[in-house]
Amino acid sequence: QLATDRVDDNGNIVVRKQDWSEMKVHVSSYNTFPTAAGLASSAAGYAALVAGLAQLYQAKEEFEGQLTTIARQGSGSACRSLYGGFVAWRMGGKNKEQDDWSDSLAQQIASEQHWPELRAIILVVSDQKKDTSSTAGMSTSVATSELLQHRATHIVPKRMEQIEKAYLEKDFETFGRVTMADSNQFHATCLDTYPPIFYMNDISRSVIRIVHAYNAWAGEIRAAYTFDAGPNAVLYTLERYAIELSALMLHYYPSFGDNYVNNPKFLVKIRSTQLDPQLLEATDRTGRTPQAGDVKMIYYTKSGPGPQTLSTKEANIDPTTGLNCYSPP
Amino acid sequence: QLATDRVDDNGNIVVRKQDWSEMKVHVSSYNTFPTAAGLASSAAGYAALVAGLAQLYQAKEEFEGQLTTIARQGSGSACRSLYGGFVAWRMGGKNKEQDDWSDSLAQQIASEQHWPELRAIILVVSDQKKDTSSTAGMSTSVATSELLQHRATHIVPKRMEQIEKAYLEKDFETFGRVTMADSNQFHATCLDTYPPIFYMNDISRSVIRIVHAYNAWAGEIRAAYTFDAGPNAVLYTLERYAIELSALMLHYYPSFGDNYVNNPKFLVKIRSTQLDPQLLEATDRTGRTPQAGDVKMIYYTKSGPGPQTLSTKEANIDPTTGLNCYSPP
Repeated sequence: QLATDRVDDNGNIVVRKQDWSEMKVHVSSYNTFPTAAGLASSAAGYAALVAGLAQLYQAKEEFEGQLTTIARQGSGSACRSLYGGFVAWRMGGKNKEQDDWSDSLAQQIASEQHWPELRAIILVVSDQKKDTSSTAGMSTSVATSELLQHRATHIVPKRMEQIEKAYLEKDFETFGRVTMADSNQFHATCLDTYPPIFYMNDISRSVIRIVHAYNAWAGEIRAAYTFDAGPNAVLYTLERYAIELSALMLHYYPSFGDNYVNNPKFLVKIRSTQLDPQLLEATDRTGRTPQAGDVKMIYYTKSGPGPQTLSTKEANIDPTTGLNCYSPP
Repeated sequence: QLATDRVDDNGNIVVRKQDWSEMKVHVSSYNTFPTAAGLASSAAGYAALVAGLAQLYQAKEEFEGQLTTIARQGSGSACRSLYGGFVAWRMGGKNKEQDDWSDSLAQQIASEQHWPELRAIILVVSDQKKDTSSTAGMSTSVATSELLQHRATHIVPKRMEQIEKAYLEKDFETFGRVTMADSNQFHATCLDTYPPIFYMNDISRSVIRIVHAYNAWAGEIRAAYTFDAGPNAVLYTLERYAIELSALMLHYYPSFGDNYVNNPKFLVKIRSTQLDPQLLEATDRTGRTPQAGDVKMIYYTKSGPGPQTLSTKEANIDPTTGLNCYSPP
């Protein structure tokens, strides 16, 4: 529907709009991070698919963010992954009476270049316990949690404003505080669901305790956690605290392997970091004792630019495997 | 202040009201259940102390429940322990403007004889993890949880009515459902506190999952959990399901010792109970695998009559130990 003619560099029409429906598409997709581990791999996948098809079909949006409304149908948060940086998923619902939320879309608040000091440290938490109720998900919460409605109506809009402002002003103190409070409140409404939904486990909670002890020791917010629909911790921090924070996490969630952190050079740095004894005294009081195996892997990363088009060479399909030739840098 | 003359059986004044302030009191106190394990031992202790002193001093209440307002000062929930059966702790606050909540007191909804089929099975959950934030407690929640105010104003009063009615009508379905939903919502507001407070742990959550799976298998609510400010599970059930439910818990939280359940005869019964294979199939899907050590002890009990006066003989103090001669039946 949104497709247009595909035109080459010389202005020749390579594929006409009406011919697209006759053509077949070969999709080659893989992740450079764990799939189905609660790290939004499906959001990334659907966003990449929508961006790729839109590029192929030369699709033109009828309004800004239309492609995000399409990505959203694959996986809700896929709409956010079509842009880089800090992206808001807007609620929509202009026609609430008709139960029409089709105007819900994603909007970029600021690009990935706006706050280059921001870092994310992701702890992939081992989750041996299967949670049957997690499949029930958000719709059960909407139907049964009496706190969710209050949260959605009275709390989230205010916090969205606060956190957008904090991001634009690079105010990490507010950004971190609102991020943590809102993560906890999201999980509170999951717990208030009937039957309750648990995404965090005791490992997740130990990370929360350590982060609060770390900030209390520092006298400022240097790290902020957020948990999505799973036990994995996403920690935000600033570049200047990334090594300290990562060394602290490596202390409490040690590993034997050298592939434990996605960035080997960073691992060398954090391994050689001496932590303040008073900090360790403070974080020890959370009750966490260092133990390998509770965290499977640590990712050190930052906000990227959203979907990128591969070069022609990288995008070539290897006929023997059916996969493209791209390999991550 | 509330003390009166102490009169013996023959009408002779043994102690005059004005003499009480000159006299010393010897208190001998012990618990027949674990102290400081999150099982309301301080509530029980303060209630016993207030009831004992009131009895000794022949104290007369100026209004019904006055003694509960005194017990409340030692430990909030001690006010409820002055009565048996089902007891409500009323909010008070007639003079809210003056921040005067002194009219908050406990009221008995029904005695322990009203619903004799009701049983409580308490799982004492091992808690190796120290939670620094649990000391902060309720006052931090009041100050920081945006969901707590909504809960207190809009949800709790309605639920109090529902659960009182259910108790009086012996409607276990409603009693159980409201109990579980409200336990979860209390812990949701703890999680919404900043920094968050965690009382339940992964063992607590596994009990919750098993109870929901058990009820789903039964097609009715046969068990209801509630968690106080700690990881221990209090399960309510009816006498006719007590063995089945306990056998289910023993299956998932096994122990090697014979003192694992407070009632040895009951332990023999539940050990010889065969559980429905379909039930175990359903509860296995919660992800819990039987493992000893996660639960320290199981108490099988029911609502009692509140503070009782010992006989003169039992109340005698052994001069060599300073303790009374009472031993539990």
